[in-house]
Amino acid sequence: MAGFPILTDDAVYAQFNYETVVDAMRDAFAERAAGTLEAPPRWYVNAGAGELVFTVGAATGPTNASGFRVYGNYPDTGDEQTQLVAVFDATSGAFEGLLVGHATGGLRTGGIGGVAIDALAPADSATLGVLGSGFQARTQVGAACAVREFEEVLVYSPTVESRTTFAETVGEDVDLPVRAVDDSKSVVHAADVLVCATNSETPVFDPAWLEPGMHVTTIGPRFEDAHELPLEVVDRADVIATDSLPQVDDYDRSYIASGTDRERMVELATVLETPDLGRTSDDEVTLFCSVGLAGTEVVLGRRFLEEFV
Amino acid sequence: MAGFPILTDDAVYAQFNYETVVDAMRDAFAERAAGTLEAPPRWYVNAGAGELVFTVGAATGPTNASGFRVYGNYPDTGDEQTQLVAVFDATSGAFEGLLVGHATGGLRTGGIGGVAIDALAPADSATLGVLGSGFQARTQVGAACAVREFEEVLVYSPTVESRTTFAETVGEDVDLPVRAVDDSKSVVHAADVLVCATNSETPVFDPAWLEPGMHVTTIGPRFEDAHELPLEVVDRADVIATDSLPQVDDYDRSYIASGTDRERMVELATVLETPDLGRTSDDEVTLFCSVGLAGTEVVLGRRFLEEFV
Repeated sequence: MAGFPILTDDAVYAQFNYETVVDAMRDAFAERAAGTLEAPPRWYVNAGAGELVFTVGAATGPTNASGFRVYGNYPDTGDEQTQLVAVFDATSGAFEGLLVGHATGGLRTGGIGGVAIDALAPADSATLGVLGSGFQARTQVGAACAVREFEEVLVYSPTVESRTTFAETVGEDVDLPVRAVDDSKSVVHAADVLVCATNSETPVFDPAWLEPGMHVTTIGPRFEDAHELPLEVVDRADVIATDSLPQVDDYDRSYIASGTDRERMVELATVLETPDLGRTSDDEVTLFCSVGLAGTEVVLGRRFLEEFV
Repeated sequence: MAGFPILTDDAVYAQFNYETVVDAMRDAFAERAAGTLEAPPRWYVNAGAGELVFTVGAATGPTNASGFRVYGNYPDTGDEQTQLVAVFDATSGAFEGLLVGHATGGLRTGGIGGVAIDALAPADSATLGVLGSGFQARTQVGAACAVREFEEVLVYSPTVESRTTFAETVGEDVDLPVRAVDDSKSVVHAADVLVCATNSETPVFDPAWLEPGMHVTTIGPRFEDAHELPLEVVDRADVIATDSLPQVDDYDRSYIASGTDRERMVELATVLETPDLGRTSDDEVTLFCSVGLAGTEVVLGRRFLEEFV
């Protein structure tokens, strides 16, 4: 026996729901707004053929959890690679448990996306559009459907089998019609909320397709020299929010929002506290740039340990 | 089931021996000498009421392991605080397992001390003296007795019960007479090899007691404004070795070896490769300043996982 709780992906996936994930992320952003979320930028350390990436954080308010997530970036990939999330009591330093696998990291990104959509998208958003069909796209849809009463989800990704499988799988997650379509234009045209969660380093849709009132979230590449989003969307957005400005500024590449666009950027925690900094009319375009707020994995890991052990 | 091996202190203590620990540390220093041990200084991150301390490292030669040790520094102390050592394959990034508890960190410090004594102390050292009676003192004695045929171990620490218990416990570890004595002078006078492993911030012996030929190891406080060792010992030592010069230089406090003494310091790995940089006669005084070489926990953790799982 290890003497402390360990949660694997199997245990998390068997027990979690997106409402809880989004709720935990709300707690994290409330601590961020209150100044009690310690969230330094990621730390990259060369270690052998690759690097280890640490995000350390602490929520020292009501959550009272500190800890970190670590994963490896190695040229090889394989099932034996995994992530660890370690949770400690932020006051006593007591070790509270470990989460092993990709679930916690992925779900917290989804949960953050859910909080962003709830804060920024029109209340009556009916159609969720998704470009991309991977793990990140899946958690974004799950969390989005926990904060809005969508009528339908449309997904496009270039490979027929990927988008078809995604539609089937995610349809079971969210208990809504999820439809795979043959072109990105149909997705963007229909979408009230558009989630881009691809690996593409070139824009995945035409900015002319954008319509007033849309909320757009970008999860994939977001640099000036590699971006899934058309740069025109950044300029056009009335609100540009992110989960972590320190992380935006810590990248060693130019971010998609530079110059005056960077100056306009606002943290999601600030929008939650001061809603006037978010959407102020139904025809504004809002944009959420997800970069990863440290400490959120620890807050979600703590919640999972509390509920599932 | 966690899906990967976990070793607790109970499992390590039930199966380890000091010969293996010292052998693993020899491997680590061989990689250090060959330039294949990545060992950046420790990283301290504020996290709640305390801080998390990470040592990340990789042995990319024959050991092929990367990973880290993490522990918390919190004002509270308690049994629920622990350390983690995570081991990855340095080439593929595959997660290989976790060691939970204080054993791996403590034993690797002992093992490093053993390698240092083997490299620096006279071959015919007969008496091992120990000032201090804590966990660090215990692992130093265990590892020292794996590299020299001592006839006797003498221990002093201020509390009678502590030193008496230490003598009994460690006597079982090393199968040698271990004797608690009533004053530090008797220990230093008799010692061929002297290990200081206290928490004292003032010198624990009189430098006049030092005799030609002695080897001294210091594990406790080692700063100009807080040191268990008399500063005269640093000046007098013919050889001043350490496990990690980058770590010596990374402290934000002045180290006990400054100025020309700092310039004379040599890494243990270098001494192992070029023995002339170590002891060159039986009457020289040698000093080993243990600071903690990153990557060594990962090398030892890998060995334990290989042998005990």
